[in-house]
Amino acid sequence: MHAPENLKPLLQEILQQALTVNDGKVADYIPALAEVKADYCALTVATLDGSVTSVGDSQVAFSIQSISKIFGLMLAMERMGESLWERVQMEPSGQPFNSIVQLEWEKGIPRNPMINAGAILVSDVLVSHFSASKSALLSMVRSLCHRENVGVDSRVHESEREHGARNSALAYLMKSFGNIEADVEEVLDHYFWQCALTMTTEDLARSLAFLANRGKCPLSGKQITTHRDAQRINALMSTSGMYDQSGQFAFTVGLPAKSGVGGGIVAIVPDYGVIAAWSPPLNSFGNSARSMAMIRNLANRLGLSVY
Amino acid sequence: MHAPENLKPLLQEILQQALTVNDGKVADYIPALAEVKADYCALTVATLDGSVTSVGDSQVAFSIQSISKIFGLMLAMERMGESLWERVQMEPSGQPFNSIVQLEWEKGIPRNPMINAGAILVSDVLVSHFSASKSALLSMVRSLCHRENVGVDSRVHESEREHGARNSALAYLMKSFGNIEADVEEVLDHYFWQCALTMTTEDLARSLAFLANRGKCPLSGKQITTHRDAQRINALMSTSGMYDQSGQFAFTVGLPAKSGVGGGIVAIVPDYGVIAAWSPPLNSFGNSARSMAMIRNLANRLGLSVY
Amino acid sequence: MHAPENLKPLLQEILQQALTVNDGKVADYIPALAEVKADYCALTVATLDGSVTSVGDSQVAFSIQSISKIFGLMLAMERMGESLWERVQMEPSGQPFNSIVQLEWEKGIPRNPMINAGAILVSDVLVSHFSASKSALLSMVRSLCHRENVGVDSRVHESEREHGARNSALAYLMKSFGNIEADVEEVLDHYFWQCALTMTTEDLARSLAFLANRGKCPLSGKQITTHRDAQRINALMSTSGMYDQSGQFAFTVGLPAKSGVGGGIVAIVPDYGVIAAWSPPLNSFGNSARSMAMIRNLANRLGLSVY
Amino acid sequence: MHAPENLKPLLQEILQQALTVNDGKVADYIPALAEVKADYCALTVATLDGSVTSVGDSQVAFSIQSISKIFGLMLAMERMGESLWERVQMEPSGQPFNSIVQLEWEKGIPRNPMINAGAILVSDVLVSHFSASKSALLSMVRSLCHRENVGVDSRVHESEREHGARNSALAYLMKSFGNIEADVEEVLDHYFWQCALTMTTEDLARSLAFLANRGKCPLSGKQITTHRDAQRINALMSTSGMYDQSGQFAFTVGLPAKSGVGGGIVAIVPDYGVIAAWSPPLNSFGNSARSMAMIRNLANRLGLSVY
Repeated sequence: MHAPENLKPLLQEILQQALTVNDGKVADYIPALAEVKADYCALTVATLDGSVTSVGDSQVAFSIQSISKIFGLMLAMERMGESLWERVQMEPSGQPFNSIVQLEWEKGIPRNPMINAGAILVSDVLVSHFSASKSALLSMVRSLCHRENVGVDSRVHESEREHGARNSALAYLMKSFGNIEADVEEVLDHYFWQCALTMTTEDLARSLAFLANRGKCPLSGKQITTHRDAQRINALMSTSGMYDQSGQFAFTVGLPAKSGVGGGIVAIVPDYGVIAAWSPPLNSFGNSARSMAMIRNLANRLGLSVY
Repeated sequence: MHAPENLKPLLQEILQQALTVNDGKVADYIPALAEVKADYCALTVATLDGSVTSVGDSQVAFSIQSISKIFGLMLAMERMGESLWERVQMEPSGQPFNSIVQLEWEKGIPRNPMINAGAILVSDVLVSHFSASKSALLSMVRSLCHRENVGVDSRVHESEREHGARNSALAYLMKSFGNIEADVEEVLDHYFWQCALTMTTEDLARSLAFLANRGKCPLSGKQITTHRDAQRINALMSTSGMYDQSGQFAFTVGLPAKSGVGGGIVAIVPDYGVIAAWSPPLNSFGNSARSMAMIRNLANRLGLSVY
Repeated sequence: MHAPENLKPLLQEILQQALTVNDGKVADYIPALAEVKADYCALTVATLDGSVTSVGDSQVAFSIQSISKIFGLMLAMERMGESLWERVQMEPSGQPFNSIVQLEWEKGIPRNPMINAGAILVSDVLVSHFSASKSALLSMVRSLCHRENVGVDSRVHESEREHGARNSALAYLMKSFGNIEADVEEVLDHYFWQCALTMTTEDLARSLAFLANRGKCPLSGKQITTHRDAQRINALMSTSGMYDQSGQFAFTVGLPAKSGVGGGIVAIVPDYGVIAAWSPPLNSFGNSARSMAMIRNLANRLGLSVY
Repeated sequence: MHAPENLKPLLQEILQQALTVNDGKVADYIPALAEVKADYCALTVATLDGSVTSVGDSQVAFSIQSISKIFGLMLAMERMGESLWERVQMEPSGQPFNSIVQLEWEKGIPRNPMINAGAILVSDVLVSHFSASKSALLSMVRSLCHRENVGVDSRVHESEREHGARNSALAYLMKSFGNIEADVEEVLDHYFWQCALTMTTEDLARSLAFLANRGKCPLSGKQITTHRDAQRINALMSTSGMYDQSGQFAFTVGLPAKSGVGGGIVAIVPDYGVIAAWSPPLNSFGNSARSMAMIRNLANRLGLSVY
């Protein structure tokens, strides 16, 4: 594998190449996201020796959106242990366009914690088990990325609530099956808040490096999760992290990954490091077109597939 | 990792432990499968140095059923190249119980080649592109496992045809969307024939070792597929190889795998080798309860997850 | 046909016979309904000459629940005219158990105003078009049944709100498709309030007699709706008024009808009159077992099918 | 009501008006149907006094297609009695576009005998209970319409078989649930044959007059079915006879009716007679645009709704 010192020019080349990709469209379901400049582009690699190599807008914080599902899940796994899996499955979901159909068929048990229904369920766990679920999550995230001023975009948070009718429908449907314990509005508030966390690609790469390092943070040496739980989170990302392109991403890239509609994607390379990419325009599946291209090219160049 | 010479006692221990698992029920939808003795049990590991270590009934040939989907896919990928993926997707399927629902929604394009609809589509490709699709497949399989007398259980083949109404429905539905080119009955005949191939765990482990070895057969040194195609097949198995337990298998074991209702399961360990297990009784998902237990235990003991 | 003066002994006989039916179970999803005495039983016939014949508990007011969908629809038809049918269809729904599936497929346009989703849509129309939708509806109902003290059971209203997660899911799903204009909580509040109206079988029979009389109230001689609109409401009840037993009710009885989970059912006999029945225990489809039996027997005895 | 002697000029006027409707497209899924001249147009009324009044191409025989479902059902009801309803329901189907989804959910029990799955089930009953199901049906139809040379278009029959993949899928799916007893190919052959019956509007009106006459043929005075069974068939047509426009047809016309993709529609007016119309171009629901217009206009002019 490439030694980290040689990474920078390679990342630069890959970022330049990505800028020629002109597919996609910035998420516009809420104004606060629609206003983000389409030409932001960042690529960061954090390797297990602790080095972090970045090109582009890697210091600009953006709305991490669904990437926050990983953080929520970590906290819920820690708090609930195995019993979490009685309330959410770990199977890929198929047909993303009709998540509500699946939820109906499976009596309010979401398919996995990487889809909205599953992350709302996880939010219910957090709201029910922590006296202050937001600050519990925020302090975990700040500690993971070693930066105290990770914040939340309150305009995005507000907007999500106003435009979140579909997520409300998912939550109420789970409630009707008895699979939401707390007050639905409080659960949704946590969920929308969590989606509005803002981080840079460097924050993301650093904070998730433990997933590539058998559960241990390479910077602090702290064991964040067990090796087994790190593998399990990677497994969930592999089958379900990229919306309805998860299979295609496994097929063409072969790395556990999670994307968000803010344009960010993180990919885990076990025993190597983390790749984090950001570019706002999304393809028709809701994944950032340029971020996907950057990660695919980098993985191919470095031969990084797990398969 | 364990050196191969130490494997035998470990496999023996794992097989003994598996015999205490008493879940499951031998497939009984056709008499020819229902009559197989429930207490057969075999475990084989083929490593990349060419050694093959087995315990239990590893010399008994059994009906490989859905494991044959890998062989059919290989032949279709070779023949069609990238254009294959216009007729079958590469996404996990979710809701297996209603594969026909999914096929209807997605206008006759199956979700992936690891589910029945996808393998019937692959059979259509083979029937349409080979003058003798069965012998083309059989000679590929014989060559892969270095055994000339790999055969087909003609009773199983006949029975499958008689009890295959659901597969017929899938095939006719794809035909109605224009996604089956050949005669439906001929396509189904190939499909049912392919499911009736009989192999031992040793045959399976040997024949699929190239998938763990970047596409190259470790015995003959022959490049069977490109490295990239080997990774792609592994990716498909990872997201879709274990029916509606694929996510759970990734979560608990973390290896690309494919099971069949004959009770066999193969798991690929990139850069290490292949594990093949067999025990007829199936759990409620259609996966062999003991084969799953053996592979999970072995993977955990040897630390073999890809994640 | 029977002359009205001979009806009483016949109704008495039919009510006695119904008391031998012991299927069903009182609705228990909210305490306020679960507490209603199971052995209440009432049968009323209002004919077009203005006579009203009753047996049993015809003076006891009960929760009319889904029968209120007729009143809501009348008001929305009056206010919106033909444009109402751009936001709700007029087709039977099939598969009642998955109304949410259908709503997803049909992009938030409910199948008809007789199912919950459709009646919630109608509530949105009322809330959006009336400054005080509840009092508008209440005064219409009071005027229709010529009784000023028709009221609402506020305990039922509160309970419905607390246990209405599924209806909330339907409302938010429609909102996510842009088919709810007003505030979702306000729409649901109207809907749950409307379900909590309490009326007697005599109130119901009297208030809907115009549907059997070409739109004209036989008591006041007032034209309530056009003949055409009376026929249209009857048509909607015929195809969709009895939940997933609508087809069976048409097949075995052959009259437009609407039932509610409070145990009430009204059936319209064009050019003859209205039958209203009440008995709380419900069959598995949510229809009152005894009310169905009474209406079926009376219709058969009097030869009242429209077909 | 209009006396029959005055009908002809009214029918003439209505047919002329219909000719100005230019929506729709002749069924083209099989060549034999696609070749039918688009400007054929016929309208017939048979009243219970035995008179038959026609305008347009009422002597031209056309492919009755799904209208044959009524004849098949009559024969199956006669043969099976109440036990028929254990194998097919009597509920409207909703979502016609996914009949196969519904069949999957409801475990191979079709929603009603007016949709394809239900009529294939009925064909299974006929094939299983008659030594010669085709001639049994043909002689019933000939006797009903008092014309011995009613025939079958063998080109249509052949074409339907060749293009009937979707119907094959429905049949095999029901078979997989154990709800088809005979050989699937034989069942489908009967079904496709039955769809290929050719009749004129006069044949249709005459042959179904018993449905408007309490089960008795007004010409021969013969009791064809019980009054109750005539009402039941009318009820099924009311809720399910016009594909996914059944609700709309009830709403706007209010008569039991059945249409076929050959362009024919029959409507039953209890205690009055039968209206039969024919014009090949179909609207997007598969119903003849002009036939619908003619029946709607005639019903409105004569005030013929059942509601």
